[in-house]
Amino acid sequence: MQILNSDIVSVVAFAPATSANLAVGFDIMGAAISGVGDRLSLERRNDERLVIREISGVAGAEKLPTDIEKNVASAVIKKMLSDLKISAGFDVFLQKGIPLSSGMGGSASSAVVAVVAMNAFLSIPLPVEKLAEYAIFGEHVATGNYHGDNAIPSLFGGFTFIRSVSPLKVIQLPDPGLKLILVHPDLEIETKVARSYLTEPFELSTVVAQTSNLAGVIAALYTKDIPLLQDCMQDVLIEPRRKALIPGFDEVQRAAKNAGALACSISGAGPSMFALTTDNQGARRVAKAMQNAFAEHQLSSQSWISDLQASGAHVENIVKYEELL
Amino acid sequence: MQILNSDIVSVVAFAPATSANLAVGFDIMGAAISGVGDRLSLERRNDERLVIREISGVAGAEKLPTDIEKNVASAVIKKMLSDLKISAGFDVFLQKGIPLSSGMGGSASSAVVAVVAMNAFLSIPLPVEKLAEYAIFGEHVATGNYHGDNAIPSLFGGFTFIRSVSPLKVIQLPDPGLKLILVHPDLEIETKVARSYLTEPFELSTVVAQTSNLAGVIAALYTKDIPLLQDCMQDVLIEPRRKALIPGFDEVQRAAKNAGALACSISGAGPSMFALTTDNQGARRVAKAMQNAFAEHQLSSQSWISDLQASGAHVENIVKYEELL
Repeated sequence: MQILNSDIVSVVAFAPATSANLAVGFDIMGAAISGVGDRLSLERRNDERLVIREISGVAGAEKLPTDIEKNVASAVIKKMLSDLKISAGFDVFLQKGIPLSSGMGGSASSAVVAVVAMNAFLSIPLPVEKLAEYAIFGEHVATGNYHGDNAIPSLFGGFTFIRSVSPLKVIQLPDPGLKLILVHPDLEIETKVARSYLTEPFELSTVVAQTSNLAGVIAALYTKDIPLLQDCMQDVLIEPRRKALIPGFDEVQRAAKNAGALACSISGAGPSMFALTTDNQGARRVAKAMQNAFAEHQLSSQSWISDLQASGAHVENIVKYEELL
Repeated sequence: MQILNSDIVSVVAFAPATSANLAVGFDIMGAAISGVGDRLSLERRNDERLVIREISGVAGAEKLPTDIEKNVASAVIKKMLSDLKISAGFDVFLQKGIPLSSGMGGSASSAVVAVVAMNAFLSIPLPVEKLAEYAIFGEHVATGNYHGDNAIPSLFGGFTFIRSVSPLKVIQLPDPGLKLILVHPDLEIETKVARSYLTEPFELSTVVAQTSNLAGVIAALYTKDIPLLQDCMQDVLIEPRRKALIPGFDEVQRAAKNAGALACSISGAGPSMFALTTDNQGARRVAKAMQNAFAEHQLSSQSWISDLQASGAHVENIVKYEELL
C-alpha cells in the first residue's frame, strides 16, 4: 500500500518549459528547454487540506486559478492523493517561470512539476507511466489537450517523439549536438484560438510535402545529416495557417535563417518561436537576430538557449523533519 | 563528348519491380522487389532507326504501345540519344515480367531498364543523377507521375526514401533484415483511377495519426525496433479510401496479419498488396494466407518474396563484336 514518507516536510521540484511540434511533428514531438520552467514547493500541513498559498513569477501569474480543482498543479496533486487513498494536507507554492499562453508548454510544466513533487513524498515512487498519466491528466484540466507533446518532454527531458500516451510509448530522438533557441515575444496566444486556424482540411500535396519533411528530419537525426535536417525541418502544414497570429513572423524567421539557423518556426501554438543551430555562438547570434526582428514590430521579447537534449523535471530539494530539529 | 562504345553489339538489362508507398510513405517511399521485373535487350542496327521489335512477357503486354514516342522504354532511349547527340539505330526487345497496372511499378521499371541498357553502350557512363532523371522522364511519359517512388528504388535497389528528384536526393533506409511479400491478384487498377479517390482533402486528426505512424516507422528502422515498426506501419491516410478498389482487401490484410505479418497494405496504387515479416518461413506462410484470401474472392494471384533490401537494375549481358567473330 502506498503511504507518505512521514519524515519529509517539504519538497521543491522543477519542470522545464518545452517546445512542441518542432516544425514537422505537430502534436507528436516536443523538446525540453533548459533554464526556464516552473518551480513548485509542496509543504505538509497539519490538517488534511490542500491549499494554494502562492502563485508567483511571470507577469499575469496572479490570473491563474487558485481553486484547487481548476489549478493544474493542485488538481494533479488532489487526484494523486485521491487515487492513492492518502489523507494528508499540503500547502502549494507555485513559481511560474514560463510566460502564460506563450507556446512554451506552461500548463504542462505546472502539471509535471506537481507530479514530480508529490511523487517525492511517496514511500514507493510511482513508475514513469503513472507519472506521465498524471501529468497528462493535469494538462488536460487546463487545456483539454491529451497529446503529451509538452508534458512528456517536460517530464522526461530530451527531444521526444510521443507515439502514444496510453499506453505510454515515447521515443527519445537522437540529437546530433544541436542548440535550441526559444524567443518569446510579449504577446499571448490562446491555444484554443491557434487551433481554430486548423479546422479546414489539408490537400494531399501538402500532406505529402510535410510527410517528406518529417521522414527527412527523423532520418537526419539518426544519421547526423545536418544538411538534410536543414532541408527538411520546414513546416508546410501548420505554419502557413498560424503564422498570421504572430506579428513579424516572416521577418523573424528570415532573420534567424540569415543569422545561420538550420530551422525556425513556431513553438507550440505560438507566439514563441524556436530555432536550431549547431553551436552556442551561432545560437546567440540567432537569438539576437530574432529579438531584433521582433523589436522592429514593436514587440519586446525574451530568449533562451538550450541544448536540444535538456534535462527533464527533477526534485531540487527535500527537507526532512530531522533537519528541522 | 559522349560517344557509343563501338565494339558493343547488344546489351541485356534487368530492372526489378517495386512497391511504392509502403503504408506510411505515400509518394515518397518505395522498395525494390527481387525476382520480378522487366528485361530489355538493346541491339545495334545498321541504320539509325529505333525500332520496337518485340514486347513479350505478361498477359496484355501486346497492348503496350509500339510507337517509339509513346512506349516508355523507347521514349527514354530516344531522348538519351537525342540529348547526347548520338546518331545510331537500335532494335528494342522488351520482356515485361511485371503485370500491367498492378501496383508494382511496371512503367517505372520499363523506363529504368531502358536507361540502364542504353547507358551500357556509352563510352562514358552517365552519373546516377542523370540516369534517375531519364528514368523519371520515362515514367512520366507513361503515367504523368514525377514522384520517383517506383523509378528510384528500381534503379538503385533497396528501401528508399525519395526526398527529391530534382535535385536528386535519395536516402537508403536501413533494413532490420525484413522480408517483403508481394501478392498480385489478377486485376488491373489504373493509377489515374486510384488517384481520383484521393481528391478530397484530409482532416488534421488523420494527418497527425499518419505522421505519427511515419515517424515511428523511420525511428523503428534505424533502431531495429520491430514492435514499434509493427505498431506504426499502418496507413490511415490512403488505404481507407483506396481499399474499396481491391475485392477482399480487409480479408487479405487480416489473413496476412493472422499469419504473422508485421504489416500489410496496398502496394502502390494497387491491386497488389505487400506485407512484411522478419523471416522467410513466415513470409511463405503470409504469402499463402493472402493468396488463399484472394481466392475466396474468386481472384487468382501470384506472389513473390524478396529481401526488403533487394538489388536494383543491372546489366545482365553485353555482347561485343569480337565475340561474334
